[in-house]
Amino acid sequence: MSIVTLTTDFGLKDYHLPVIKAKLLSLSKDVNIVDISHIISPYNILEAAFTLKAAYPHFPNNTIHIIGVDSIYSPENKHLLVKFNNQIFIGPDNGIFSLINDGGVFEYIKEINHPLSEKSTFPVLDVFTDIAGEVLNRYKISAVDRENDQLKKWIKNKPNITDENELIGHVLYIDNFGNLVTDIHKDLFNKFIDGRKFEIALSHIKINQVFDTYHAYTDMSNKVKYRFVSGEALAIFNSLNFLEIALYRSNPNHGGSAASLLGMRVDDSIIIRISH
Amino acid sequence: MSIVTLTTDFGLKDYHLPVIKAKLLSLSKDVNIVDISHIISPYNILEAAFTLKAAYPHFPNNTIHIIGVDSIYSPENKHLLVKFNNQIFIGPDNGIFSLINDGGVFEYIKEINHPLSEKSTFPVLDVFTDIAGEVLNRYKISAVDRENDQLKKWIKNKPNITDENELIGHVLYIDNFGNLVTDIHKDLFNKFIDGRKFEIALSHIKINQVFDTYHAYTDMSNKVKYRFVSGEALAIFNSLNFLEIALYRSNPNHGGSAASLLGMRVDDSIIIRISH
Amino acid sequence: MSIVTLTTDFGLKDYHLPVIKAKLLSLSKDVNIVDISHIISPYNILEAAFTLKAAYPHFPNNTIHIIGVDSIYSPENKHLLVKFNNQIFIGPDNGIFSLINDGGVFEYIKEINHPLSEKSTFPVLDVFTDIAGEVLNRYKISAVDRENDQLKKWIKNKPNITDENELIGHVLYIDNFGNLVTDIHKDLFNKFIDGRKFEIALSHIKINQVFDTYHAYTDMSNKVKYRFVSGEALAIFNSLNFLEIALYRSNPNHGGSAASLLGMRVDDSIIIRISH
Repeated sequence: MSIVTLTTDFGLKDYHLPVIKAKLLSLSKDVNIVDISHIISPYNILEAAFTLKAAYPHFPNNTIHIIGVDSIYSPENKHLLVKFNNQIFIGPDNGIFSLINDGGVFEYIKEINHPLSEKSTFPVLDVFTDIAGEVLNRYKISAVDRENDQLKKWIKNKPNITDENELIGHVLYIDNFGNLVTDIHKDLFNKFIDGRKFEIALSHIKINQVFDTYHAYTDMSNKVKYRFVSGEALAIFNSLNFLEIALYRSNPNHGGSAASLLGMRVDDSIIIRISH
Repeated sequence: MSIVTLTTDFGLKDYHLPVIKAKLLSLSKDVNIVDISHIISPYNILEAAFTLKAAYPHFPNNTIHIIGVDSIYSPENKHLLVKFNNQIFIGPDNGIFSLINDGGVFEYIKEINHPLSEKSTFPVLDVFTDIAGEVLNRYKISAVDRENDQLKKWIKNKPNITDENELIGHVLYIDNFGNLVTDIHKDLFNKFIDGRKFEIALSHIKINQVFDTYHAYTDMSNKVKYRFVSGEALAIFNSLNFLEIALYRSNPNHGGSAASLLGMRVDDSIIIRISH
Repeated sequence: MSIVTLTTDFGLKDYHLPVIKAKLLSLSKDVNIVDISHIISPYNILEAAFTLKAAYPHFPNNTIHIIGVDSIYSPENKHLLVKFNNQIFIGPDNGIFSLINDGGVFEYIKEINHPLSEKSTFPVLDVFTDIAGEVLNRYKISAVDRENDQLKKWIKNKPNITDENELIGHVLYIDNFGNLVTDIHKDLFNKFIDGRKFEIALSHIKINQVFDTYHAYTDMSNKVKYRFVSGEALAIFNSLNFLEIALYRSNPNHGGSAASLLGMRVDDSIIIRISH
C-alpha cells in the first residue's frame, strides 16, 4: 500500500480535503492517505515547512507528500515534483523545499508541465493530486529537470553567536500547547555554552538551566531548587533536539501559555548570555 | 475496498465519530472511511448540503455517504436511503437530498424501516451505520419505496435577474478563508452580462471585473489597473465555477476576511448592476 | 487488518500526530489507525477517560488503544500495557485506567520496561507506538506484571442519594453541542424516583420530566405541555443512558448552549429533588 500525505492550510470544514481524497482513491485503490496538518495558518510557508520537515522522515521510503500552501501558479511560483532523502514531494516553488531539505542534496527537481497549472484556482486537486496519481501508477510524467540552484530559496534567520558570550536564536514555531520552539539545536547550544553558566532572558523571566527531559525537571532532587508547579516557565530540549520554552503543564485556553505570557511570536529573538 | 463518507455536525472532540467508525469497521473489514466534514455548523442543512454536493461527485461509483445533520427521527423527518448519480446516500428527510441532487433524477428513494429509528437519540450510529453495513454486505434492507414528489423539498433563494440590468444572487457558503461563495454560476453571469460593463456592489466596495483564475489577477499586465496587494477584494470564478468574493491572500485570523470586512453572511444578497 | 486508536491532547495542528501515524505504518503495513479525539483539553484525564470509555467497546476485539494524555514518565507515572474486555490499552499510570475500566476485571496489567521511558519528552512516539508495534508483530514485550491494587486509582465524585428525597449527581462531560452529560445513569435515576414527582434544579431553570428520546420530546401530544422551540432546556437519557441536560437544537456559537446558559462546568453538582 502506498502512502500519500497532505499538508495544507485548507482547514477542516470545507469540501476541498474530501475532494482531494476522493480523487486520490479514484486514481489508486491501494493508497493510504495520511493528514499531516490542515490548520497551517493561511499562506504560512514557514509553519508548513516546520511541520512537514519534522514529520516526513518518519514515513516509509517513497511516500508522496503533497503541499497545499500558497500553491496558486504564477511565473514566480511554478509547480514542482521533488525527491530527496528517499521521499517524494509535490508542491509550489515558493521556497518551501529549501526549508524542508535545509541544505541537503536533491535526488531530482522537476518543473511540472501540466495543462491545468496556469488556469486552476485549485491546483492541489487539478495538478498535484493528478501528478501523485501518475507517480503511484508509474506513468511517465511531463516535466522539465531543474538544477538545485534554480530552486527558490527561503532566506531565514539563523541562530547567531554574536560574540563569545552571546547566542541569538529565534522562535521557529509555536505548538499546540503554546510552547515556543526555537531554532537553537542542542549541539549548537552545548558547543556555545561549553560548561559555562548562562541566562536565557525572556521578557520578565530568566531561566538558567535547560533540562533534557521533563522527568529531569520533575525529579525530586530538583524540587528544592525549582518550584515544581503548573505554569512555571522552563527550558527543555524537545523531541527534535531543539531548545523549547514551555510552561509546565500549561493549558493555553486557561491561564495562558509560554507564547501568550511572554508575549512572543514566530521570528522573535531569544538571547542566551553567558553569566559571570 | 468500499468507501463510506461521513458528513456531520458532531465536531471533532466527542466520542460520536470514533464510535461510528468502530461500528463500520466491525460490520465490514474492507471499508475505507473518509471524513467529508464534521464541523458543519449545528443543524445547518444548507452548509452540509453545499459541502457534500461539492465533494460527492469525485468519489468512485457506489460510495456510501452518511449524513449526520438534523437526523433525529420525527414523523416529519424520516430516515432515507437514496441513490442518484451512481452514489448512495443515507440520511434524514429534512430537505437535504433536494439540495444535493438539485433537480436531478433519483435512481431510488427508500424510506428506511428500522426498529431503532423512532427510539434512538443517536440515529447515525443506531440506524444509518447499520444500514450502511447492510448495503456493504449486500443484505436485503427493510424499506419502502417512495416517489420523488414525496421527498421533502428545501425552497431556497435562487439567483434572480430582476430586470435586464440587475442580477441578484446570494451568499451560499463562507469558506475556511472567509471567502464568500455565491450562487451565481459562471454561465448565468456571462449570459446576463453579455459583454456589458458591470458593477458588483458590496457594502463600501465596488468590483467591476471577475477573474477566471488567480493567475489572471496577479498577471503583470494587470498590476497597473489592479493593486496587487494582500487584502484587496476581488471577484473570481472558483473551482466549482461559482462567483466568489475573496480578499487576496487574506488570513481570517489576522486582518479579516471578505466575510468579516464586508459584514456579509450566508443568504445575504449580492447585486450585480450593469453600469452605463 | 489490525486497528490502533489514538486518544491525545496533541491538537490537530502540530507534527506529533502524523509522526506517530508514520511510525505505526512503518512498523506494520496492515494497520488501520482510528482517531478517537486529539482535542482533549490539555492534561485532562477525566475528559480523555470519558471519551475513550464511551468509544472503546464498539471496536473489534484486540484493538490497541494508545492514550497520549499526561504521559510523561515519572516514578509516580509509569508506562503501562493493560488488557480488559478483550481490548488492549497502552498509556500512563495516571489513574485513567481505573476510570475507563471503572471497577471491571483486568485481564493483565503490565509495567512497561522500555529503554526510552525515562528519557523521552515524547513517550507516545518513543515508547507507546513502539510497544503497539511489538503487540502487532507478536514480539515478546519487556514488562513486569502488576496486581490490580497496584494500579493508580482516580477517586471521583459518585452520584449520591443523600436522603430518600434528594439525589446529587455531577456534570461528567460537556459535549460538542454544549450539552451537559451527567453521571446519573437511567437505572439509578429510575430506582430513586420510583414513580414519584421530581424537580431538577439548574440555576434559574427547573425541569420535571426526563425524555427517553428526542422524538418523545417533540411528539405532537406533548406540544401543549412543553414549548417545542429551539433553545428550550430539556432533560434526556442519552445514547450512553446517562441523564443529559440539553438546549433543544442549540448552537453553542450562536445563542449559547446548556453549559453556557446555565453557567455549569465539569464536576458541578446537579440536584434532583422529590416534589410533594
